[in-house]
Amino acid sequence: MTDIAFVKGHGTENDFVLVPDLDDARALSPEQVSWLADRHAGIGGDGVIRVARTETATEDFVRQQSGEARFFMDYRNADGSAAEMCGNGVRVLAQYLRTHGLETAESFSVATRGGVKHVRVVEDGFAVDMGAWRFTHFDKAREFGHDTLVHVDGHEPFAAISLDLGNPHTVVALPPEVDLDALDLTRAPELNPVAPQGSNVEFVQILGNGHIRMRVHERGVGETRSCGTGACAAALATSYWATSQVEEHESWSVDVPGGTLRVTALPGQHVELAGPAVLVAEGTVRL
Amino acid sequence: MTDIAFVKGHGTENDFVLVPDLDDARALSPEQVSWLADRHAGIGGDGVIRVARTETATEDFVRQQSGEARFFMDYRNADGSAAEMCGNGVRVLAQYLRTHGLETAESFSVATRGGVKHVRVVEDGFAVDMGAWRFTHFDKAREFGHDTLVHVDGHEPFAAISLDLGNPHTVVALPPEVDLDALDLTRAPELNPVAPQGSNVEFVQILGNGHIRMRVHERGVGETRSCGTGACAAALATSYWATSQVEEHESWSVDVPGGTLRVTALPGQHVELAGPAVLVAEGTVRL
Repeated sequence: MTDIAFVKGHGTENDFVLVPDLDDARALSPEQVSWLADRHAGIGGDGVIRVARTETATEDFVRQQSGEARFFMDYRNADGSAAEMCGNGVRVLAQYLRTHGLETAESFSVATRGGVKHVRVVEDGFAVDMGAWRFTHFDKAREFGHDTLVHVDGHEPFAAISLDLGNPHTVVALPPEVDLDALDLTRAPELNPVAPQGSNVEFVQILGNGHIRMRVHERGVGETRSCGTGACAAALATSYWATSQVEEHESWSVDVPGGTLRVTALPGQHVELAGPAVLVAEGTVRL
Repeated sequence: MTDIAFVKGHGTENDFVLVPDLDDARALSPEQVSWLADRHAGIGGDGVIRVARTETATEDFVRQQSGEARFFMDYRNADGSAAEMCGNGVRVLAQYLRTHGLETAESFSVATRGGVKHVRVVEDGFAVDMGAWRFTHFDKAREFGHDTLVHVDGHEPFAAISLDLGNPHTVVALPPEVDLDALDLTRAPELNPVAPQGSNVEFVQILGNGHIRMRVHERGVGETRSCGTGACAAALATSYWATSQVEEHESWSVDVPGGTLRVTALPGQHVELAGPAVLVAEGTVRL
């Protein structure tokens, strides 16, 4: 047992345990990660982010990003498995790096398993280029003869649109007569056709021009207070419903249960996610 | 905003944020407590325990306990409201006091809103006299003509026994053919007659002589990994089912989802709860 440093933080209440490991001396085992993320027996978080320097990293793919990024976001899911990226998590990491003087510029890059990510300081936090996205529902609708249908207890099936943002999303524009707050998301919505790898499911209400509200059921997790790629998917789908296309530089405010995010369509079929990042507590944990 | 010290710990995975406030200089508002207990926006815990010295406490009822107890457990529920006592929480507080050299004896007392509680060091943690208990089901059965019935989705109603341990409990001895792990406790079990103030509900499986397993649905909270008074209620009810009485010094091991507790009947219709207490992390939080 050793005492190690940790920081707890969140982005729109998607929360993380950060473990600074600047010398890349502490590979965290899946068991250690899942214990750190355990909300009752450990500290608690939706994920764990180990922070290492790219230059001295032990893993080749991390060192290869050292020309562009000084720090590596070793993102781990609460079950201990490794993940490529996390849109809310990378802002919390950026806040940590800026607060501790490890990055001093207004814009910088971070190494991830999903490649180098560009981060810049904005008024209410940080903006991150989340990379490429694409609609996937056209292929599905052609194959099955209908849009994806989403079943939620107590409602007729909702028609939905499918997108890929590195992970799969299915977005429902909720009819005005359905109360978003009253939807029962304690069970996973059922999809028809079934998503072979599962899917995150977003339920969207349009509040006004460029302003939506959503709730999200995350694949394998349940309802969460925020999902970065989910907010992007919801905004892009909303734009498609309105105009059958997505214009570059179009921008949306997305209210999620944990706060508000800003999504912007970037050139080259990229999408940017912006929002707050809060460091809540820091200390030592016995690992 | 000020940085204050905190400790996170748990007893059989019933977890708490401790706020040392030895000079009683920091009354925590309900909003501050519920933020500290918030698992996504704050640190996260089932409750918050502010630790103050009894001798210099601002509240009369705390100073009045200073002859017997040096420290006050200001126990607060996750919603910010004050509570009298918490059987798992008082062990975590005891561990904190011993670890930091604030109590050095093998047995000592702690002041609570429920009066002075006596704590002693045992092999796997601490034992606490939880105070008086009594059966309440006889009155109910007489009034309604039947035992309390507990309804859980997918099952015929279960007959149950009612106890008061400062808070109300309803205990079901699960028939052997019913799988304890498969019970759906995502919704509150329904009681007939209805408990006017609500009730914690325990589902018990007898594993052997003096050894039971249980799951608990806590009033106003949902299923939890452990409930101290619930473990006591389950053990006492088990003894009653076996012999129609509870013998002094009788003792039971109670397996809860978060670990194992030991319950002992004390003279004078008191009951003792013993079990582990773990300090997980400590640091500072911006309040």
